[in-house]
Parts: sequence; C-alpha cells; structure tokens
Amino acid sequence: MVVRTSSSPSTALAELRATPPLVQCITNTVVTNFTANALLALGSSPAMCDIPGEAGLFAGIAGGVLVNLGTPTAEQRDAAREAVAVGTPWVLDPVAVGALPVRTALAHELLASRPTIVRGNASEILALAGAGAGGRGVDSTDSPEAAREAARSLAVRTGGTVAVSGPVDLIVDAERTALVPGGSALLTKVTGGGCALGAAMAGLLAVTDGFTAATTASAIWAVASERAEVASRGPGSFAVAFLDALATLEPAELDGRVTA
Amino acid sequence: MVVRTSSSPSTALAELRATPPLVQCITNTVVTNFTANALLALGSSPAMCDIPGEAGLFAGIAGGVLVNLGTPTAEQRDAAREAVAVGTPWVLDPVAVGALPVRTALAHELLASRPTIVRGNASEILALAGAGAGGRGVDSTDSPEAAREAARSLAVRTGGTVAVSGPVDLIVDAERTALVPGGSALLTKVTGGGCALGAAMAGLLAVTDGFTAATTASAIWAVASERAEVASRGPGSFAVAFLDALATLEPAELDGRVTA
Amino acid sequence: MVVRTSSSPSTALAELRATPPLVQCITNTVVTNFTANALLALGSSPAMCDIPGEAGLFAGIAGGVLVNLGTPTAEQRDAAREAVAVGTPWVLDPVAVGALPVRTALAHELLASRPTIVRGNASEILALAGAGAGGRGVDSTDSPEAAREAARSLAVRTGGTVAVSGPVDLIVDAERTALVPGGSALLTKVTGGGCALGAAMAGLLAVTDGFTAATTASAIWAVASERAEVASRGPGSFAVAFLDALATLEPAELDGRVTA
Repeated sequence: MVVRTSSSPSTALAELRATPPLVQCITNTVVTNFTANALLALGSSPAMCDIPGEAGLFAGIAGGVLVNLGTPTAEQRDAAREAVAVGTPWVLDPVAVGALPVRTALAHELLASRPTIVRGNASEILALAGAGAGGRGVDSTDSPEAAREAARSLAVRTGGTVAVSGPVDLIVDAERTALVPGGSALLTKVTGGGCALGAAMAGLLAVTDGFTAATTASAIWAVASERAEVASRGPGSFAVAFLDALATLEPAELDGRVTA
Repeated sequence: MVVRTSSSPSTALAELRATPPLVQCITNTVVTNFTANALLALGSSPAMCDIPGEAGLFAGIAGGVLVNLGTPTAEQRDAAREAVAVGTPWVLDPVAVGALPVRTALAHELLASRPTIVRGNASEILALAGAGAGGRGVDSTDSPEAAREAARSLAVRTGGTVAVSGPVDLIVDAERTALVPGGSALLTKVTGGGCALGAAMAGLLAVTDGFTAATTASAIWAVASERAEVASRGPGSFAVAFLDALATLEPAELDGRVTA
Repeated sequence: MVVRTSSSPSTALAELRATPPLVQCITNTVVTNFTANALLALGSSPAMCDIPGEAGLFAGIAGGVLVNLGTPTAEQRDAAREAVAVGTPWVLDPVAVGALPVRTALAHELLASRPTIVRGNASEILALAGAGAGGRGVDSTDSPEAAREAARSLAVRTGGTVAVSGPVDLIVDAERTALVPGGSALLTKVTGGGCALGAAMAGLLAVTDGFTAATTASAIWAVASERAEVASRGPGSFAVAFLDALATLEPAELDGRVTA
C-alpha cells in the first residue's frame, strides 16, 4: 500500500496540476463523460479502464483509482476486484448501497481491500457501516451529521478516510474531523456531481494522503460550484460553468474553506 | 398493475415536481447522461438501475420505468425483463425496432407485459405494429400521420397509450387522439432528445395516467425546445439551454399546447 | 471492399451534408454522447449499434464504421469483429493500444480486416506498428513527426490511410503525406475530442476515399476548435461551442488548411 503525506488543499491542487496524475475510473455509464471532463478540467488525466484483464494492470500505473458502483455490470465487478487488489490508493463510491443487493455484496467484499477513501451520501455511509437501509436509490434521506458516528466507525474499520457529502460535507478518519460548508445546491441537479467528486479525490490521492485528498476535493467542489452558480441560468449552463470553474480555479481560493 | 387517473398537463407537471418520483431508466449508453440531466431538470429523480438482480427490485420502488432498446446488451435485456414484470407503469422506447433482430425480438417479447406507453418515431411504431420495416436505423422515414392507424392498433393491443414523435407529435390510446404541434427542429440535432422524452413520460407515470403522461411530456418538450432555440447558436448551446428551460418552465406554459 | 474516389475537403464536407450518411460507432462509454452529437452537428446520422447479432447487419447499411477500443467489453469485441468483416469502409481507433493487453490483441486481430483509416496519437500508432510501447494510457508521449515512419509502414501494411493526431496532424498513405496544423489545445481538455475525430472520418468515408476523409476531418477539427476557443471561457464552454461550430462551419473555410 502506497502511503502519501499530508499537505494543505492549495498545495495538493497545485501538485495535482504539476504532476498530472493518471486517474483510473471504474464508474457508471451515466457519469463517465462528466467525470472524465471534470478530471481533465482539474488538470489530471482520466482513463476509464474497466474490463477484466486490463483493470489490474492499469491500476499499477495509475496514481489513484476510483471504484463507483452506480451501474455495476459483471465485467465491471471483476475489473473492480482486479484494480483494488493492486495496492494503489483508491476511492470507493458505494452508490445506492444498502438498497440494492448486487452492489451491496460487492461493496462489502471490496471493503476488505481497505479503500483509502469511502465517499458517499449519508444514507450510503450509514448503510455501508451497517447502521441504515441505504436511502431512496441514489438520494440520501439522512443528513451528514446523522452519519458522523457511522462514518467514524467505518473509518476505523478501513484504516482510511470517510467523506459524507451533503449541504455541509463531513470528512473523518479514525481521529480527525473536517467540515466543508458552502457550495451550490445546483450540484444536486446535475447527474454525476457526487460521482465526479469521488473521482477528483482519486486524482488527489496521487499527490497527498486520503484525509487531505477528501477535504481538498470537497473544497474545490464548494468553490467551483459557487462560481458556476453565478454564471448559470439553470442546471444545463451550471454544468458547463462548473467545468470552466474547475479549470480556472486558483489554489489559493481553497484557503479557509475547510473547518475543523 | 397500478392505474393512475387523468389530469391536465399543467397539473401533471406541478405534481411531478411536488412528489418528486424515482424514475428507473434502462436505456442506451449514448443518452444516459442527457436523460438523467433532463429528468433532474424537470424535477424528478433518475436512477439507471439496469443490471439483473437489481432491476426488478428497483422497479418495485420506482414511480415509473423506462425501457429503451438503443444499445441492448445481454445484461440490459435481462434487466428489462425483470423490471417490466413488476407491474409499475412503464414506457417502451423501441429504438430502431424492425431494422435489427435482437431488439426486435425483445420488443415483441416485452409487449406481452403491456407497456403503459410505447414511444417511438413513425417508422418504429409502424414496425412494432407489424406494418413497416423500421426505417433507417434510428431515423424515421415515415410521418406520424402515416403511423396513425398502426399506433391505434398497437394501443388496442397493449391497452395503453402510443406516442409517435415527429414534427407534430401524435398520441393515441384505444379511443382518444391528441396532437402536439410546435417544438424546435434542433431537437433532432441533439442525441437523446427523443430518448429523454420517453424518460420524461416514465417520470410522469408516477403522477398521472399514460395518455396524460405522454401528452404532457410532449407539450413540455415543445415549449422547452422553442425557448432553447431562441437562446442558442447551434446544437451544442441548444442542448444546454434545453436543460435550463426544463428546469424553469412554468406549468401554466403548457396550457393550450395539446390539441385534439 | 467499397472504394470511393478522392475529392477536396470542402467538397467532401458538402457531400456529407447532402447525403447524409449513417455512421456506425462501436466506441467507448465515455464518449458516446459527445461523438453522436459531433456527428449530428456535422450533418451525419450516428448509430451506436454495438451488440453481437446486430453490428454486422448494421455495418451492411452504414456508409462508414468506427471501431474505437477505449472500453472494449466482451460484447463490443464480438460486435467489432462482425462489423469489420462486412467490407464497409471503416476506421480503427486503437485507444491505449500497446499499454493494455486485451485491446492490443484485438487491434492486431482487426488489422487483418484492413481498416480504411487508422487514427491515433503518436504513441498508439508507434505501438500498433510494432515500434513503441503505447505511451501512458490515453496520453501520447511521442510527437506525430516521431511516428511518421511507423505510420507509413502501417499504411503500407493495411493498404489504407494512417492519421496521427497531435499539435500538427499527420496523415499518410503508402505514397502521400498531408499535414494539418492549427486547431485549439483546448481539444485535449475535453474527453472524446480525438475519438469524435475518428467518428467524423468514418462519416466522411461514406462520401470520399480514406486519405481525403482523414485530412478533411482533421481540417474540420482545426477550424471548428479555433472558432470554439474564441467563444469559450474554459473546457466546458469550449465543448459546447465546438459542437455549435461543427454545425455552422462553411465548407469553404476548409480551403488551405491541408498542407503537403
């Protein structure tokens, strides 16, 4: 297992752009395009390498790996198993876990490979920690604060970081807690806003540790979505402006966005 | 089989936004993103749950189900069978049926589960009704009026509604006929315009009957596409403006868009 | 094998729009939407028909076929085999070939069906010609000029055209060489810029020969991307403006963009 050291969000973003890392995404068919464009805009290099026989090899050269369970075909399930076995830092996004059996079984199986970060909404984190039913499909029916104890217990179990997305993002590891308030509610009106956030965390894992990667990505999302909302007339133009904002964001804009 | 009562288009849209329903989409890889964004913009909650072992379960909690045959992988075909067996109101979009054998066989098989709505272009409706060859791939080579009798006979057979998309949309059930004129021709220059229309019908099935759902979605498409055309400089900006228009459309704007 | 005669880029674009051809795309899940929208904007008719049992039949009615190996599932691999066996002019886009074994084996197998055009970045062309390791996933680590000899030897072997994308696009067949300079670097910040270029080449194969199709598509990309850059504020708005530019481009704008 690769272990990277902590840094500030502004340093982490600057290092991402200076690298830039290959980010492997095993993700759902709905958000592949938006996810790849978000990673490119941010300054990293996405590759959706998700077939058995290639996924493990690619994980070996990627700087970070995302496994998102949104539409887990049989081939993607095997590809995910291959990829997480490699030891590259990785993010698990357990979309709709708890509510649906195939992905729920896979999520629990993959936990044994100790994801560097688990990112989900409150209902997903509660379900994965064994403390809830998983909400209503992809929609959370719980608040991040309600998932705080479940997130902590999950982080203790994985030895990693757990990020709970919501109106105020909550990021915990076994000992630390960070909050990232702010951001635009329009992010919930564009498909893949949360999925691409998980991918950004995977990209940042190439240059920093899990706790920093998760807080940095959340801060980036908050700043970029606020700027995009100002430039938009609805969810269509918001998604476009959000990608523009990711590309033009200055690292210093992240200062002060993370609170303890 | 759930049966919902009729309402006006403006009431149906207002109720959709007040609910908002979960909409399950088993659809093609080309349009998943645009479809999900259109459903979100409209005020509903999409989930592309399309793998065997989950699709049937999800159909049980969804308010409406879309089965679109654009890129029907083996797993999607099984997922579609699971989902339509549940009894939740559902829409069949038989993309390119008649021209290609795998989807044609599946479409005929699924008809036995009596789709609440069948939505297609004229060539697809003619082919599914056994009266035509299916056009040229995804392109219709026939006009909606030419498909009127075929649509009626298909509606009698399913006991549901059949919607024929074209310059003037035609919606029929066993007894009624509605026409929705207007809309922008730019919709035909954006992939998924018709596929997302079928998804919107599935969403509206959560709050109204099939005939109202089909006419309401067609009226929404006409109003939103006209507004988007004014705000666009080509098909790229049109697609963005269309999503913005779906989100900002007022229910009262639908009044008078449906003619008998 | 269908053989079409040479023409100028402006004539080829005008003929594409006058036809317009069906273009079959067997391509990766990340770029299906952008590819279909680019083909529609350009004035052709895309169909992502990529399942076994249908792909070969559809290739028989399509004017051109694209096989892109970005996310080659087992079903897509069989669909590709079916499609290229038909004899319709076709484009091979060997995404990340060399670096990953499943697609590398398939690319070499498909070469036996003699692609009318092979389009890739320099690392991919070097790897496919047996002269390089394949770069870093989807990123080229070599320049088009460095791949000139490899491209020529590959063209001799297929009897077709090889197009190497980069800051200056290089197009060769067994005897001729063309260069297309210009274009916007923002194209590399949008996923699918290169993949959709391969699709445009497949569309142009319906109306002209391989060498003209490849140079024409490269010239279209150069002109449209330059115009889009002027109208954009980042990669999100660039992608939108690029589709607008494809739709409004005049054939005469291509004159003088191809140099020997």
